[in-house]
Amino acid sequence: VGLLGILGGMGPAATVDFYQKLIEETPARRDQDHIPVVIWADPRVPDRAAALLGSGPDPSPMLRRGLDALAGAGCDLVVVPCNTAHAFLGHLASAAGLRLLSLIDTTVEDLAAEGTQPVGLFATAGTLHARLYHEPFERHGIAVVTPSAEDQRRVASVIAAVKAGSNGAEDAAVLAEVAARLVSRGAERLVAACTEVVLAVGDKSLGAPLTDPARILARRVVRLVADAAIS
Amino acid sequence: VGLLGILGGMGPAATVDFYQKLIEETPARRDQDHIPVVIWADPRVPDRAAALLGSGPDPSPMLRRGLDALAGAGCDLVVVPCNTAHAFLGHLASAAGLRLLSLIDTTVEDLAAEGTQPVGLFATAGTLHARLYHEPFERHGIAVVTPSAEDQRRVASVIAAVKAGSNGAEDAAVLAEVAARLVSRGAERLVAACTEVVLAVGDKSLGAPLTDPARILARRVVRLVADAAIS
Repeated sequence: VGLLGILGGMGPAATVDFYQKLIEETPARRDQDHIPVVIWADPRVPDRAAALLGSGPDPSPMLRRGLDALAGAGCDLVVVPCNTAHAFLGHLASAAGLRLLSLIDTTVEDLAAEGTQPVGLFATAGTLHARLYHEPFERHGIAVVTPSAEDQRRVASVIAAVKAGSNGAEDAAVLAEVAARLVSRGAERLVAACTEVVLAVGDKSLGAPLTDPARILARRVVRLVADAAIS
Repeated sequence: VGLLGILGGMGPAATVDFYQKLIEETPARRDQDHIPVVIWADPRVPDRAAALLGSGPDPSPMLRRGLDALAGAGCDLVVVPCNTAHAFLGHLASAAGLRLLSLIDTTVEDLAAEGTQPVGLFATAGTLHARLYHEPFERHGIAVVTPSAEDQRRVASVIAAVKAGSNGAEDAAVLAEVAARLVSRGAERLVAACTEVVLAVGDKSLGAPLTDPARILARRVVRLVADAAIS
């Protein structure tokens, strides 16, 4: 790993969240110990969830532009702190000559290594519709529980509120109610498969362990960089 | 303003801090309303303060590399969330074809517009030695009070602790003691002319108003972008 590329801006707060976690997870005593990164954060990428639901333009051209810019800046590895964007990334990253370290695959692999308890998913409607987490979880024999249609609308409104700058306690309370119903339907672990959900929850409890994919990805990047430095 | 360039990584936490403030200051209701940014954050830039004190290598080549990368990515305006780095930036930014919006000049202009009360400076020894804030403040008729040599060592150790990952309450207590002595020597306002000082203080009071240059710069960028969009 020379330069780590971060394709961000989806949204900007999720980018800050991931970079902050990458810094926290890096065993650094001074500036120079940290991982060199380039962040492309053009938030004008069309809404990923809307595109997956057929109600908005394709974000691929803007994603391609960002990946090409990161490759041009000298990155070889790229991460994307936006779960929903992963529906579009596979071909685009390899076409740009970049290795994508998937937020989703990394998370599912880590949880599968811990066991096969059913998970409850907090995600955008686009991520659920495209089955971005369903497929890898089911491949590992992990059952997935998703919110009812009504609860999913509540989750979507929390995500939109965080994107609009909210950090209110009501958001966490709404998520806690949805979480209780996911747990009553068998979820033993919750996955915050949308960064805005992590930001809304903060350090409040949802009544079941909550997995934060951005944290898992940050740890994986730090391990990869450490391994590359040794070899 | 097309793409805003952020030359960061000095340190990484200061970069996160600035980008977070830029997001907070942007009147956005959705991702797409935010300012497009490219962040070059290679933290291997040699220590800026050590170079200014003659005890470390010149960071200019690494800074030039970052500025060239930002220009190559399509940026025209650049900001640098590291006060000390500003000692090296003037010529480098223009040589790269970038307009630098100075963290230091923006802060001094804003404070000068409010009046001419004496300021107490929290900064690296390099920033003080190079008189990066002294000169513009004195040009505006604003007196500058700096810590004693012993207090400056305390400030430097807080900055180093934050760079090493500390966020302890002791750091803020040390700064509060230094602040009291700056105030007793005439400072009516304190300037956190090193981002790590802002991070160490958090929301604790230092007994006098504390100016955060990163916040002022974020507001200025948001105004510039709004003006450009109108014109």
